[in-house]
Amino acid sequence: MCRWLAYSGTPIRLEELLYKPQYSLIDQSLHSRLGVETTNGDGFGVGWYPVDGPPAPALFRGTGPAWNDANLREIAGSISSPLFLAHIRASTGTAVQQTNCHPFRHENWLWVHNGSIREFSTLKRDLTLAVDPRLYPSLAGSTDSEVMFHLALTYGLRDRPVAAVERMAGLVEAVGRAHGVADPLQMTVATTDGDRIWCFRYSSEGHSRSLYFSTETTALQALYPENRQLRALSEETRLVVSEPLGDLEGAWQPVPESSYGVIQKGADEMGRFTPAAP
Amino acid sequence: MCRWLAYSGTPIRLEELLYKPQYSLIDQSLHSRLGVETTNGDGFGVGWYPVDGPPAPALFRGTGPAWNDANLREIAGSISSPLFLAHIRASTGTAVQQTNCHPFRHENWLWVHNGSIREFSTLKRDLTLAVDPRLYPSLAGSTDSEVMFHLALTYGLRDRPVAAVERMAGLVEAVGRAHGVADPLQMTVATTDGDRIWCFRYSSEGHSRSLYFSTETTALQALYPENRQLRALSEETRLVVSEPLGDLEGAWQPVPESSYGVIQKGADEMGRFTPAAP
Amino acid sequence: MCRWLAYSGTPIRLEELLYKPQYSLIDQSLHSRLGVETTNGDGFGVGWYPVDGPPAPALFRGTGPAWNDANLREIAGSISSPLFLAHIRASTGTAVQQTNCHPFRHENWLWVHNGSIREFSTLKRDLTLAVDPRLYPSLAGSTDSEVMFHLALTYGLRDRPVAAVERMAGLVEAVGRAHGVADPLQMTVATTDGDRIWCFRYSSEGHSRSLYFSTETTALQALYPENRQLRALSEETRLVVSEPLGDLEGAWQPVPESSYGVIQKGADEMGRFTPAAP
Amino acid sequence: MCRWLAYSGTPIRLEELLYKPQYSLIDQSLHSRLGVETTNGDGFGVGWYPVDGPPAPALFRGTGPAWNDANLREIAGSISSPLFLAHIRASTGTAVQQTNCHPFRHENWLWVHNGSIREFSTLKRDLTLAVDPRLYPSLAGSTDSEVMFHLALTYGLRDRPVAAVERMAGLVEAVGRAHGVADPLQMTVATTDGDRIWCFRYSSEGHSRSLYFSTETTALQALYPENRQLRALSEETRLVVSEPLGDLEGAWQPVPESSYGVIQKGADEMGRFTPAAP
Repeated sequence: MCRWLAYSGTPIRLEELLYKPQYSLIDQSLHSRLGVETTNGDGFGVGWYPVDGPPAPALFRGTGPAWNDANLREIAGSISSPLFLAHIRASTGTAVQQTNCHPFRHENWLWVHNGSIREFSTLKRDLTLAVDPRLYPSLAGSTDSEVMFHLALTYGLRDRPVAAVERMAGLVEAVGRAHGVADPLQMTVATTDGDRIWCFRYSSEGHSRSLYFSTETTALQALYPENRQLRALSEETRLVVSEPLGDLEGAWQPVPESSYGVIQKGADEMGRFTPAAP
Repeated sequence: MCRWLAYSGTPIRLEELLYKPQYSLIDQSLHSRLGVETTNGDGFGVGWYPVDGPPAPALFRGTGPAWNDANLREIAGSISSPLFLAHIRASTGTAVQQTNCHPFRHENWLWVHNGSIREFSTLKRDLTLAVDPRLYPSLAGSTDSEVMFHLALTYGLRDRPVAAVERMAGLVEAVGRAHGVADPLQMTVATTDGDRIWCFRYSSEGHSRSLYFSTETTALQALYPENRQLRALSEETRLVVSEPLGDLEGAWQPVPESSYGVIQKGADEMGRFTPAAP
Repeated sequence: MCRWLAYSGTPIRLEELLYKPQYSLIDQSLHSRLGVETTNGDGFGVGWYPVDGPPAPALFRGTGPAWNDANLREIAGSISSPLFLAHIRASTGTAVQQTNCHPFRHENWLWVHNGSIREFSTLKRDLTLAVDPRLYPSLAGSTDSEVMFHLALTYGLRDRPVAAVERMAGLVEAVGRAHGVADPLQMTVATTDGDRIWCFRYSSEGHSRSLYFSTETTALQALYPENRQLRALSEETRLVVSEPLGDLEGAWQPVPESSYGVIQKGADEMGRFTPAAP
Repeated sequence: MCRWLAYSGTPIRLEELLYKPQYSLIDQSLHSRLGVETTNGDGFGVGWYPVDGPPAPALFRGTGPAWNDANLREIAGSISSPLFLAHIRASTGTAVQQTNCHPFRHENWLWVHNGSIREFSTLKRDLTLAVDPRLYPSLAGSTDSEVMFHLALTYGLRDRPVAAVERMAGLVEAVGRAHGVADPLQMTVATTDGDRIWCFRYSSEGHSRSLYFSTETTALQALYPENRQLRALSEETRLVVSEPLGDLEGAWQPVPESSYGVIQKGADEMGRFTPAAP
């Protein structure tokens, strides 16, 4: 059902994290160990912010499998970024097309999602109607993930991100309930404005997809002692991933059920995630 | 803005009409003579009904240009059909993806469109809301054409096709008016249930995209005197096209402005097309 | 390293074998149980002969994974054939492109291959030079499999198929030896002229990729007792597959190491496969 | 038959030249004014050297039309480079696949070509055999252009570029003569090591495809007076193009028939191009 990765910290070439680790995201596209699906070959995407300049993210998204995409390898080898999101997709039924590939973008914001809205085709109309009509025209694809992003934008993602995502989740659960769909929401989400990253782990049934964050930069460095790029990482560098990129004891910490985290300058935050009824 | 072709009659291999004529549809993908755009390279599709058996159409749609698609050439060379629609696309802004390629299909019905709804991104929400909620989940892409098809289905396409398309057009014009969009609708459309084909030529401004029908089978045969397949065509064989496939004098008749035609067993029909206010 | 299927017998819709069985070929593209690679997502292809008419096969080949290809599903659902080959690819290094997808075709012949020529990039030049210069221009891709096919054609595939494939294998082993490559050839191959199918299982190391044939039509029918299409299969209907499509005891027989088989009208043949030194 | 662009000078965002000019390269993919083909929709590519660091070029190549490629637009908007080549393709018969898209790369070298080798399928084997066997494995596609590049590499492109290309041209003409092909070579070529760019305009028949260079930076700036990026261009900035990007009088100078040019620090060079018999 997809895997993703979010990075914030010292600018790094994308390939250091997408290709080089033992269980890299690209490797997970063929052989995920913790995913519901072992193969994530229905498209991919990466969204990155530039090293200098304004926080306008660029996207590269493809519809084939990440593992055999020659352009992704080139781009990952030539672009450095202080903040990026990457995603590999296993479709839960919607079409394999670029507009369904994550990250989704709105102005300076990016969004990636793993999970699904159960019986989305039944709930889709009601959920889509709740999207702010001014945002409606920017819905380009057909996924639950993109509708979730636009609902969060509708509910004030730009101003109060955690509250906005909680309202989105509350709406999905209310609409699900109205249609008799049990446990409608399953999600790990990362969203960013180019400065901070908000991560969420939640499911209606209380049994969410896996999510981990890197405990300390030194742990990452110890993973790859010969990697000179990693040696230079700042202490504030953080990585959040659907599944660990390696086996190093203590380097990865699970994100608790029903919680959110904020990666930012200074102390990071973590808190309880509670859907807000609409 | 797209070109299309509709065929009904003696079963014929698709390539006879898609590739072999002087100005074939595939040739028009590179060099349209009458289109608003000379290049129609943003995808293509063909939907065909089988020679025997129930009228369940099959689709082959691709996102690259028709002119260089090796699979289209193979399929056109190996499949015969008594009734098929083919389409080449020039996007008016929506994404180049399979779910935006024509023909669109619903059960045994197919639909192709050339033209556009002006300022569709502004009108899209209101139009989509008018689609029957039971049909809403089958909207898979993001085009005006697919919404038009689903509106026509909502208004009874299966029972009274002309009236249903007139109501669809009426709604588009009413919604356009409400949003201050002048002359919102531009269309030539073909739709079929596998038995009859309904064709429409209409635009709010009274200046519609070109549309022609083949006058008599003998004219088609005269076009290609050496083509043995064509010699065997029945008298009821008909072809409707965005632009003539050849220069033969008298072989092609323009469809009048604001009119519709029905190709069917026995005498064909033609009538005036009048949008019906909702 | 790829999986394939060859069918000969009563005309059948392709989907009966590509999609419907428990471990169908399309299912194997995501989850192969016996393959060296569990995922075969680097392209696919099917080549079929028409029910009537001359034995001119048509091809449909794609570069994405078979499991999410909408066109393959349409074609498999609409085409019936008395003889077809299908293939799903896991690239061993060469590019993911249509010209590298199997089946390969030459006039009325088709060819599919699972396996590889070890260190092919080292041996490629010598092997390619041995291809008949008149056949050289029809090499369109960059795979070992296509070179093997053209070598077999060079050595008389059309007249004495088994001997031609034995000479091809002998050349590969001789060229490998000259370059110090141990055990250069690993292959299961099916090739057909539209009338008979020749299958081969061989590897230089005597440990070849898996290959099975259906023992009796009645076994196939028992597998799917509710499938009406299968009930009508003739006794001469045969299926050869990289791995069984279901678990039915006794329905599938492994092809022995270093052997070939011929599926044809009347009694099938089987024999020992011995590479012939050039 | 393709169009290309080569840029060297002050680092610039790719989109400034690929998208913004009046007759940009992307615009030429739909509507070339001087090309043999007006549509160049059979793939595209761009190869760029980084602003800092070693001259290792990155590639982005696609098989669809440039005009509708969302990823190309993203990359062009986010990457700046002091030296890049871009190409749009109109196939002369070989497959539309990434390995046939320009630029071709070998180590730090890039190569783009407009034109063709006449009857290439007849001449291909002899030409390919002349490629250094150590370079042979890096032939990945099936175009004449890639073989020309590898022949130039074989003949010492890295040490004496002009002489190497002259020998390549001489070989093509000799092999053409041996097979009775009149006027076999038609080319404009750009090749670069990341420091200098060599451009060539030549055809056996003395009637070559168009090629222009920008006369002075100030002319470019005058073309786009409101473009702030261009105002900062150094005097050494140069652009070589298949056809002018705008109508400004005096801004573009045709490259003479049968000549080459070198863009480099200090004075550029130009000289007569004379194929060298092998």
